[in-house]
Amino acid sequence: MSSRTERPDLAELRNKLHIAPFHRWLGLNIVDLTERELIIEMPWRDEIVSNPIIGAAHGGILSTLIDLTGLYTVNALGGIGRATADLCVDFHRPATSGPLRAIGKVVKLGKQLSVAEARIEGSDKRLLASGRGAYVA
Amino acid sequence: MSSRTERPDLAELRNKLHIAPFHRWLGLNIVDLTERELIIEMPWRDEIVSNPIIGAAHGGILSTLIDLTGLYTVNALGGIGRATADLCVDFHRPATSGPLRAIGKVVKLGKQLSVAEARIEGSDKRLLASGRGAYVA
Amino acid sequence: MSSRTERPDLAELRNKLHIAPFHRWLGLNIVDLTERELIIEMPWRDEIVSNPIIGAAHGGILSTLIDLTGLYTVNALGGIGRATADLCVDFHRPATSGPLRAIGKVVKLGKQLSVAEARIEGSDKRLLASGRGAYVA
Amino acid sequence: MSSRTERPDLAELRNKLHIAPFHRWLGLNIVDLTERELIIEMPWRDEIVSNPIIGAAHGGILSTLIDLTGLYTVNALGGIGRATADLCVDFHRPATSGPLRAIGKVVKLGKQLSVAEARIEGSDKRLLASGRGAYVA
Repeated sequence: MSSRTERPDLAELRNKLHIAPFHRWLGLNIVDLTERELIIEMPWRDEIVSNPIIGAAHGGILSTLIDLTGLYTVNALGGIGRATADLCVDFHRPATSGPLRAIGKVVKLGKQLSVAEARIEGSDKRLLASGRGAYVA
Repeated sequence: MSSRTERPDLAELRNKLHIAPFHRWLGLNIVDLTERELIIEMPWRDEIVSNPIIGAAHGGILSTLIDLTGLYTVNALGGIGRATADLCVDFHRPATSGPLRAIGKVVKLGKQLSVAEARIEGSDKRLLASGRGAYVA
Repeated sequence: MSSRTERPDLAELRNKLHIAPFHRWLGLNIVDLTERELIIEMPWRDEIVSNPIIGAAHGGILSTLIDLTGLYTVNALGGIGRATADLCVDFHRPATSGPLRAIGKVVKLGKQLSVAEARIEGSDKRLLASGRGAYVA
Repeated sequence: MSSRTERPDLAELRNKLHIAPFHRWLGLNIVDLTERELIIEMPWRDEIVSNPIIGAAHGGILSTLIDLTGLYTVNALGGIGRATADLCVDFHRPATSGPLRAIGKVVKLGKQLSVAEARIEGSDKRLLASGRGAYVA
């Protein structure tokens, strides 16, 4: 699988991602798009913490990343996803430092509904959370 | 089911909720706790918008609300939930104004794992999103 | 909520349910349909056991019940569901005797997608499993 | 990743799988176990049909396959899974002929909870359904 960082629509994808105020607040950045994966990174920011004792990011932030990475993966890799129909997330380990890296893959592109999965890794590549979204066209 | 707004631990629950920096950023408020439901409200803030054309809140914000409302419901109604194991959310309608009201109910309290459900309503009481979380003790 | 056992389409619903060979194998019976709930029962049969030591029904059988009860609930209560898009199930307790009773409720009827939830109770009314399905129109 | 069909515990795994009466009814067979995947096949049988017009297998049968394949994957690949806590399944295409092949992969092995994913392919290798289960130790 060749990396396609020069893919002409990567800049366009970045612009689209930043139309959403919440994505700008999260400081999201599209890192790479290959034929099979979309990779989005999010820097740490202290407001996202849920448990201040261990300094762990809120599960809702990880869910947000999985949701949007799945949606952008569908749209970047040939499908049409306008909105999230539903989302399932498993939380595996506390996310205690950034950047958080979300890797999205298409599960199935459909006419009415597409499904994508995403996993979130910390800077040490350990799996922090994973899940899947279904997106309506 | 009588409303128990005077329930002595409601203030304590509010304090706990605000230990999390992300909960403070969201401006969460515990509105009511009855024998069967916990109600949490979140005011609108412009940073949570995903789609700026219709001004809809990000699905990740709704997922956050369902996640935390389920967790606090488990703990407020007799169970022990330390962390979210997994989360499933269905998105029903765009959330375009606040406050957003999340209503949590226990599905099953368990020794290892408890399950709670939550629904989110807009100010017109229409159902915006709903889902369920499983929480490890 | 008045029970509407005389609802004219209950017989029709039973016929539809039994078009599916797997539903006939399961011996499903529609017990009641009210304005808010559809209730389906399944007798015990020894082939459905997963764990023979405690004689517990297979989680896949409980998932089947939740899936089909949600689908029939959507169609019985004003929506259109042709096929299941996705399904989430939580397993709460082993199901060790029958009949198993599934109670379905509509969460949201939509043009493209409807969501229904269902819970399964044993003969002692204890909650055995619960979940939700999303159904495409 | 070398295929390890000679792995000594494959016969043992087959025996364990067949302890469950429902697994015997389904005619399940463990086809292969590698370092990363467990593959289970199920022959067609007419009782599993949901929609007799197109002859499609019931979604509950596909859910069953995903559930059990995830559980056996956890146990075959170093984890401990005693029972399914919850299950999420996406249905992608009708399954209209057999054998159905389920391929399981570990997502995360944990002390309290392990997560595995599984996909189901038809004889033409097309993706029919996919999902993930969380299993308590």
